Amino acid sequence: MKKKLFLPALVLAASLVAYAQEARWIWYPGDYGIWCGNELQSERLQWGARLTPFWPLYEPHSRVLFRKDVKLEADEPLEIRCDGNAAVCWTDDRGNYIESAALLGKFTLPKNATSIEVKIHNGARPPSIWVKGPHIVSDSSWNAGWTLSADKADDVPCESSSRFVDPQTPPGLAKLPTHEKKPVWSGTPAGVDGMIIAADFGEETYGYVKFHDVKGSGAVKIIYAESEAEMKAVDLANTEKGALDGWEMIDLSEAKEFRHKIAYGFRYIGVVRASGDVSIGGISMDYETKGLPVRGSFRCSDEELNRIWDVSVHTLELTCREVFIEGVKRDHWVWSGDAVQSFLMNYYVFGDYDGCRDTLWTLRGKDPVKCHLNRIMDYTFYWFDAVEKYRMYSGDKVFARQVYPRMKSLMEYALSRLDSEGRPADREGDWMFIDWAPKPLPNNGGVTSFEQMLLVRALEATAGVARDVGADSDADAYLARAKKLRAEIVPRYWNAEKGALMHMIYNDGRVDPMVTRYPNMFGLFYGYFDDARKSSVVKNVMLNDAVMKIQTPYMRFYELEALCAIGMQSKVLGEMKSYWGGMLKLGATSFWELYNPDEKGEAHYAMYGRRFGKSLCHAWGASPVYLIGRYFLGVTPTAPGFEKYEVKPNLGGLEWMEGDVPTPWGKIHVRVDKSGHKVTEIRDR
Amino acid sequence: MKKKLFLPALVLAASLVAYAQEARWIWYPGDYGIWCGNELQSERLQWGARLTPFWPLYEPHSRVLFRKDVKLEADEPLEIRCDGNAAVCWTDDRGNYIESAALLGKFTLPKNATSIEVKIHNGARPPSIWVKGPHIVSDSSWNAGWTLSADKADDVPCESSSRFVDPQTPPGLAKLPTHEKKPVWSGTPAGVDGMIIAADFGEETYGYVKFHDVKGSGAVKIIYAESEAEMKAVDLANTEKGALDGWEMIDLSEAKEFRHKIAYGFRYIGVVRASGDVSIGGISMDYETKGLPVRGSFRCSDEELNRIWDVSVHTLELTCREVFIEGVKRDHWVWSGDAVQSFLMNYYVFGDYDGCRDTLWTLRGKDPVKCHLNRIMDYTFYWFDAVEKYRMYSGDKVFARQVYPRMKSLMEYALSRLDSEGRPADREGDWMFIDWAPKPLPNNGGVTSFEQMLLVRALEATAGVARDVGADSDADAYLARAKKLRAEIVPRYWNAEKGALMHMIYNDGRVDPMVTRYPNMFGLFYGYFDDARKSSVVKNVMLNDAVMKIQTPYMRFYELEALCAIGMQSKVLGEMKSYWGGMLKLGATSFWELYNPDEKGEAHYAMYGRRFGKSLCHAWGASPVYLIGRYFLGVTPTAPGFEKYEVKPNLGGLEWMEGDVPTPWGKIHVRVDKSGHKVTEIRDR
Repeated sequence: MKKKLFLPALVLAASLVAYAQEARWIWYPGDYGIWCGNELQSERLQWGARLTPFWPLYEPHSRVLFRKDVKLEADEPLEIRCDGNAAVCWTDDRGNYIESAALLGKFTLPKNATSIEVKIHNGARPPSIWVKGPHIVSDSSWNAGWTLSADKADDVPCESSSRFVDPQTPPGLAKLPTHEKKPVWSGTPAGVDGMIIAADFGEETYGYVKFHDVKGSGAVKIIYAESEAEMKAVDLANTEKGALDGWEMIDLSEAKEFRHKIAYGFRYIGVVRASGDVSIGGISMDYETKGLPVRGSFRCSDEELNRIWDVSVHTLELTCREVFIEGVKRDHWVWSGDAVQSFLMNYYVFGDYDGCRDTLWTLRGKDPVKCHLNRIMDYTFYWFDAVEKYRMYSGDKVFARQVYPRMKSLMEYALSRLDSEGRPADREGDWMFIDWAPKPLPNNGGVTSFEQMLLVRALEATAGVARDVGADSDADAYLARAKKLRAEIVPRYWNAEKGALMHMIYNDGRVDPMVTRYPNMFGLFYGYFDDARKSSVVKNVMLNDAVMKIQTPYMRFYELEALCAIGMQSKVLGEMKSYWGGMLKLGATSFWELYNPDEKGEAHYAMYGRRFGKSLCHAWGASPVYLIGRYFLGVTPTAPGFEKYEVKPNLGGLEWMEGDVPTPWGKIHVRVDKSGHKVTEIRDR
Repeated sequence: MKKKLFLPALVLAASLVAYAQEARWIWYPGDYGIWCGNELQSERLQWGARLTPFWPLYEPHSRVLFRKDVKLEADEPLEIRCDGNAAVCWTDDRGNYIESAALLGKFTLPKNATSIEVKIHNGARPPSIWVKGPHIVSDSSWNAGWTLSADKADDVPCESSSRFVDPQTPPGLAKLPTHEKKPVWSGTPAGVDGMIIAADFGEETYGYVKFHDVKGSGAVKIIYAESEAEMKAVDLANTEKGALDGWEMIDLSEAKEFRHKIAYGFRYIGVVRASGDVSIGGISMDYETKGLPVRGSFRCSDEELNRIWDVSVHTLELTCREVFIEGVKRDHWVWSGDAVQSFLMNYYVFGDYDGCRDTLWTLRGKDPVKCHLNRIMDYTFYWFDAVEKYRMYSGDKVFARQVYPRMKSLMEYALSRLDSEGRPADREGDWMFIDWAPKPLPNNGGVTSFEQMLLVRALEATAGVARDVGADSDADAYLARAKKLRAEIVPRYWNAEKGALMHMIYNDGRVDPMVTRYPNMFGLFYGYFDDARKSSVVKNVMLNDAVMKIQTPYMRFYELEALCAIGMQSKVLGEMKSYWGGMLKLGATSFWELYNPDEKGEAHYAMYGRRFGKSLCHAWGASPVYLIGRYFLGVTPTAPGFEKYEVKPNLGGLEWMEGDVPTPWGKIHVRVDKSGHKVTEIRDR
């Protein structure tokens, strides 16, 4: 049901009083995303310990002032909740500032008030408030600042979420919903030294491990495993070198029933006695999920593709938590390169816009900028593009004003790291990642065409947001810089003989002979090529097996997107069936960090030189949901919030397909077969 | 007992192994002081709410890396405690970095380790660790950083405290010790509307209010009062305008016994029924104190002065908490101008050096600098001087390396606010406070001689610390600037006719006609005057009743210090007896924010336009302990940590006096009578 407002027209005309909408917890923009991103990432288990990210973290504000200008026709009784130590202040119609004239909980704002302010401190959780009165409620019409009333220069519109409306539960104390889940099998596996109980939950899962009927005393090692082989690798959990990633020691001496304090990702649980005589009668878990309805859907004539869609959705449900982590077990961190792909997938499955926004903040942090996002230059550049795409999909009109100050300071940081020609320099501490590849990429010692393209995109995106908030001179400067850098790419990097863009030009002017897919495929969807060059790139790079293949689903995301962008959906369908279908044939219940069809058995689980180093539930593995929604069903917003959109379906060889794409106002249903397609709007939000 | 080290000389010669000293909790310098300063200040009660400071607060780091280079002769078994999610990492002798190879709690660092690192996150409390092995313990030989191992640029020596050595209790979970205290009177005062119980604890106190035998249900208002009249002013607690500062609403519906969660300052407690039928059978409190031994002492031939010393010590004990607040009830905040005086008093009573250091951090916060300390320009300048004095009294050799980066950035901020001549400019948002005075001071619209003197002192102090950490070019630059500004003062501000320094020269060159005591008395102890001018200032300002008198004990601190510095102890003795003795005669059990002998009755409790707005336990009220120790007993360090010191007693008219001055290594006992004096060193630490 679309909400309707019954506003007496006379009242509206007579005053600025707005009738109350839903009261939400509000906080300083970014504080929640930074705070819960830090918490979640620092729960990563590795080798018996909790490993925090290797990049610097940022802190949310510990003290915030929330303000709203008001105009009242009568005294306004307010219910006020604060997560932290707080006081309510207000200004009267003669400009007097009345400090702390409030009993928290209930407070009547006098009729002659012209503004209300809540000052709050919380050193442990994001300071946040909830206010409800007949006319005034806490929402993004409030401003937040971290300094004096008088200095409103730092004021930004408050942030909120439909997740946090319960007055009893501030964001910093909210937990995701859980329900109990029993294993499909549990017992004591034969021949596994010291293992006293184990369980298989039947599919990749996430939650709080529970032990029942615990007897005796002593400690155990809990092994979180994604494969049966990993669960049984007790020898590794008992050594330091080559150790299992996901295990930890727990003392059960005092427990009869045990529920872990921290939720984590796994399919199998193995429990090894470490000391004492402890025994465990049974095992289960509390499955934890964000509980988001799957608003996107997809069915087609190919059952394998349907199953790929379903398992992608499950992968995404597991990795899209309070903020979007990259793998539920390893490495449990928020990486910009991975997250911006999760956003795109999420737009076609859950439409969880708040989750994208919170994750953008986790990545960006607070001022001053300490380093590139995740210390990776490309990951900084992707972030800017993701901000712009977030606005397009979500239609969030407030975010630009909230984020622009930090967008600008991050861009200042990025620009300060460029070389004397204004190109992305190879600097100590700035990791040029691009991709994991079988052969080392020539990423260092000069400027890659790829990073320069990302910088251009970042500048264009920032200019767009600057324009939105009225910072036109900023926008002009960013655009001028983008234009200059964009114009350099083809003249500098195009090699007529190879019919492709080259990857790297070193600082001494030498061109590295390696051709890679990366700049060529990004060049395709960023519009760098005329028709002749486009054909040349498709032939000489995209469809040329002699050019090093892309191995990670991370970069295959863009490769397949590039192929879709040039209408090669049928080739992409084949790729999806062989790559993702290949994982399904091996029993995958979620999609992996990497899949190499040439590998056998346990070798599939190894990565980073560790026997079970590979993540088997990895956000970037879910990319088919994006490719299907965006390029098969063919739905794209062309104005913010899908106020306008286009539908260009491509069956790619399927007999028929149908599905839903979530939007802020509902869903777009598309049904396609060889005779044509039908689009239905469902406006129910 | 002085600690002795029994080190086998051969082992010392053979390797870098140091035998383990006391293991302490360690943290990133400043994190504890910033964190607990925020917590304590945000507990201020005002008008039924908790009022956070009006200046911006800073956040401690949420993630810290602790590192130590090691050289081992055998595997080192370590006990490790972490307050937060953490992992232990180490580097081997081939330079391999082993990430997270640790079971927390117990961990054996292999013999071939060359460094150990603990990475830790805590978003709610200062991340801190405790490590103990045969040779390695956590102490200030460890470094702390907030970024990658590879980037040691930000490394500083860790901070610790002898308060935090218990492995079970990290700093962020430690509470000050308490013991139960009964009231000297409790009952239901007649004729006080709605008051169901009240109590008098006999003297100013601080702690957790407790109610016993609670029956019925409903809410009460607790009134924290420093005078009986305030306790009875229920009418004020029931209105918003002119309301009592220290009251709050508490729901007792579920309680049989009630203990408040937050400790606070008061002498009297009044409890007023706010709703329901709740009754309270009895009242007591848990007195909370830092539990510091009173290491200084003083007795003399004048019993009133002895009592002044005792009550000053009590005032100081109450206000010197985790960090040094200004008043225990109002306003419960940490002000630089007040705190630096508490430091000096504390050096002569408790010798609580960690408390000073933690408070210096509360005030300074973290980078980037957001504004002047407490938003007051003078308060920024005092802080630099206090850092230098802290080093002199405490002998802390590590602090310079910990604090210098933030000393430098604060000085950069301060210098960025100067005018085009490099003088302290009157800028929007930079409060030039100097003092509360009966007549407004001409502090705005130009440059005051007073602020310029403070800037000179700040530059000199910063240069001293810069020199200590080897930043010689910084030191030279600060000194050059100080010299130039210092040389300007007398030529610019001296008025030969008035025989005094003038207060203000406006931006248009006009000299304000007002002569104030402030620059003249600071000029005395900062050495601005030749003998002729010194005499002139004493006669025309210090002893001239026509020059506006100083009213606050805050600035009287410096006035009396100036008089002592020129040998006028007997005048100061008279002032102490009349001002502080006057408060005692009115029944004070702690010293007040302000005392005006001309006032009568309840008028003594009024301030800031509020009937009970005055703090009756105010740190700056305790200044006699400093004047007595520094200028009567006459003990001053002349090298850091009292490695050298001078004793220049001055009886100031007393028959005899004796006392102890605490030092890092013990005490200096001084006994003085008219025949001479005797100094005894007690080296017991």
